[in-house]
Amino acid sequence: MPEISSRAVATPESPIRKLAPFADAAKARGLTVYHLNIGQPDVEAPVEFWQAIKDINDPIVAYTNSAGNQSLREAAVQHYRAKGINIELNQLFITTAGSEAIIFAMLACLNEGDEVIIPEPMYANYIGFAAIAGVKVVPITTRIEDNYALPSADEFARQITSRTKAILICNPNNPTGTVYGQAQLDGLQDLAIKHDLFIFADEVYHEFNYTGQPVPSVLNLPGLDRHVVAIDSVSKKFSLCGARVGFFICRNPEVYGSAIKFAQARLSPPAIEQVGVEAALRSTPRSYFEGMKDEYMKRRDLLVSTLRGLNGVVVPEVDGAFYAMVRLPIDDCDRFCKWLLEEFSHDGKTLMLAPGTGFYETDGLGKDEVRIAYVYRCEELATALELLVRALAVYPGRTCEQALAAR
Amino acid sequence: MPEISSRAVATPESPIRKLAPFADAAKARGLTVYHLNIGQPDVEAPVEFWQAIKDINDPIVAYTNSAGNQSLREAAVQHYRAKGINIELNQLFITTAGSEAIIFAMLACLNEGDEVIIPEPMYANYIGFAAIAGVKVVPITTRIEDNYALPSADEFARQITSRTKAILICNPNNPTGTVYGQAQLDGLQDLAIKHDLFIFADEVYHEFNYTGQPVPSVLNLPGLDRHVVAIDSVSKKFSLCGARVGFFICRNPEVYGSAIKFAQARLSPPAIEQVGVEAALRSTPRSYFEGMKDEYMKRRDLLVSTLRGLNGVVVPEVDGAFYAMVRLPIDDCDRFCKWLLEEFSHDGKTLMLAPGTGFYETDGLGKDEVRIAYVYRCEELATALELLVRALAVYPGRTCEQALAAR
Repeated sequence: MPEISSRAVATPESPIRKLAPFADAAKARGLTVYHLNIGQPDVEAPVEFWQAIKDINDPIVAYTNSAGNQSLREAAVQHYRAKGINIELNQLFITTAGSEAIIFAMLACLNEGDEVIIPEPMYANYIGFAAIAGVKVVPITTRIEDNYALPSADEFARQITSRTKAILICNPNNPTGTVYGQAQLDGLQDLAIKHDLFIFADEVYHEFNYTGQPVPSVLNLPGLDRHVVAIDSVSKKFSLCGARVGFFICRNPEVYGSAIKFAQARLSPPAIEQVGVEAALRSTPRSYFEGMKDEYMKRRDLLVSTLRGLNGVVVPEVDGAFYAMVRLPIDDCDRFCKWLLEEFSHDGKTLMLAPGTGFYETDGLGKDEVRIAYVYRCEELATALELLVRALAVYPGRTCEQALAAR
Repeated sequence: MPEISSRAVATPESPIRKLAPFADAAKARGLTVYHLNIGQPDVEAPVEFWQAIKDINDPIVAYTNSAGNQSLREAAVQHYRAKGINIELNQLFITTAGSEAIIFAMLACLNEGDEVIIPEPMYANYIGFAAIAGVKVVPITTRIEDNYALPSADEFARQITSRTKAILICNPNNPTGTVYGQAQLDGLQDLAIKHDLFIFADEVYHEFNYTGQPVPSVLNLPGLDRHVVAIDSVSKKFSLCGARVGFFICRNPEVYGSAIKFAQARLSPPAIEQVGVEAALRSTPRSYFEGMKDEYMKRRDLLVSTLRGLNGVVVPEVDGAFYAMVRLPIDDCDRFCKWLLEEFSHDGKTLMLAPGTGFYETDGLGKDEVRIAYVYRCEELATALELLVRALAVYPGRTCEQALAAR
């Protein structure tokens, strides 16, 4: 029999999705399950998205340009200019969501066996994308005690080898909710120039920022036009996760041209959603994003105020995105998250969380952490967080120290 | 400055799409351009596709399951059973079009540097997919004189090395229009078992078959459940190229499980099109495909009768798909196709063809061949083919022998 590839063996299952069968079983037993495990925003998408799709009147669905519809690209360029990021039409193309944009960045810039440094805890799918591209992920650990701040340039420099070709950051960060400011990006800029590195920046949470200060984009770092690839998507900003429309943004013509060749091979991004997204980009006022931000900020405040101060619970500063990575008084987050679905319930309800271990590339880290996505309205979020408080009070799997700490 | 990857340098531009700027320029000069260069079918998509999408009434577009909506997978399983291919629900998942299904098959079964044997002329994007997966394409040449018949098992065996892990076929074939019958597939079956090879079969043109006999599917070869991955898509059968909905079908649980891990990394296929495709699959009677087949058969007949018998033109048997790979009395197909767009016109019209060279991996082959996609109604196709006849009569770039042969 022919054998599967060793890269397939090495690719991890999605830590966020592997608990799904236990959630299905819980629902089959009649329980309500609050999905705090997945970044599926619930704020209503712009009505113009749906209207434009319903107005389509074509007998077929044709391929679009491999770079996406030009009119959509023009609308996207305007969207960036409106938030102070000046790019040209030939520096942006449409991808099948942010996922594909990251894969294209890796394929265009790194060879098999090259290394990309990524702060951990990290968005777990970066590990899967690296497996697809045959690229080695080198984690650099950030700590809850430091509010998961970006490590210093010196710490980054210690991870650099002859195979290091890029640094990948997510800002605002999934899973930690950290926002990296100008000083931190300036450090990356020096590194990139000194060590000839590409900077990949996943900026899909750019609109989700509760610091009161603008989130700096890597696209606005001077002197880095040849080093930077920015990745964006409409999944989060318009609650259109299933639309699969993203943006690859790069001012380096060689990188852009290479990525376009990979885009040509897969022919075109989804056509119907492109029509809807263009309408959403053209019609959505900045106030939409302000309203959305206010809503998520209220939820963030609710989460922090409910959990911070509980015995054995550590809630760091949460400044952006719609996640918090929190420390809980538990022995093993994988066991705890499974226990929530299999053994715990209160009043016919339970909740699903993403185990922290899945966000670390370094073995053994994250065992007492979970990622919480605050993607419910406050009333429901309050119920879900109350369930978590109750669950922690009865969960049998605490270490001795945790039990003592929780007194 | 950091440098782009060597795999990016090695990836070819799409031969089908690289002439696009010349077509745009021709249109800007006021010419009508007949696009015989791209497999964009024009038969009307099922109305149920559009109706189902217009009936969606959700405030957001959520991620679907990474494997696609279960109800769509169930509809697809029924679709295959109706055409005599018995598969189970856990043997099929939804991909972002056939392109992604092929990439997943390569990633799951082959390591970087492994080899896949592909008959040439071949669908040009296979080369791009192999570049993405870091896999080496080993071409095995088929000849217009043999109607591009599949080479014998002995010829395949001569290409097998210690790195060979798979054979990839497209049946019915793009770009040649050849249909491989049972005897040819039986030869592949023996090879796969003897040499422990995976068989990847791109069967997206399964409904486009003018032989009067059923096209055998690799999924019906006995004893190959662990070796076969079949790839399908709705792009051609429903004229939904831009919908980006395809199918990965495999009875080998290790391969299937591996491909699902890559699917989890990219989260979900496009959600809105999945709803439409499910409606199309559930509601479309077999008569839809019969009508479609009759229409394309008429066009095939028109193409063959117009071109066959012209001096210096070789038109092989064309039994399936909606392409013909024909030999023309020209010195260089790339020059000819560019000349059509830049210098030729008749009555304000010209045409775009796909140069044959782009479909060969072996350097120097295909220089006097072009791929013609017959994706226009007969009246328009007749006009386009008449343009080709006129163009051949005045094209200055013929070799001496061609000029003599054309007498």
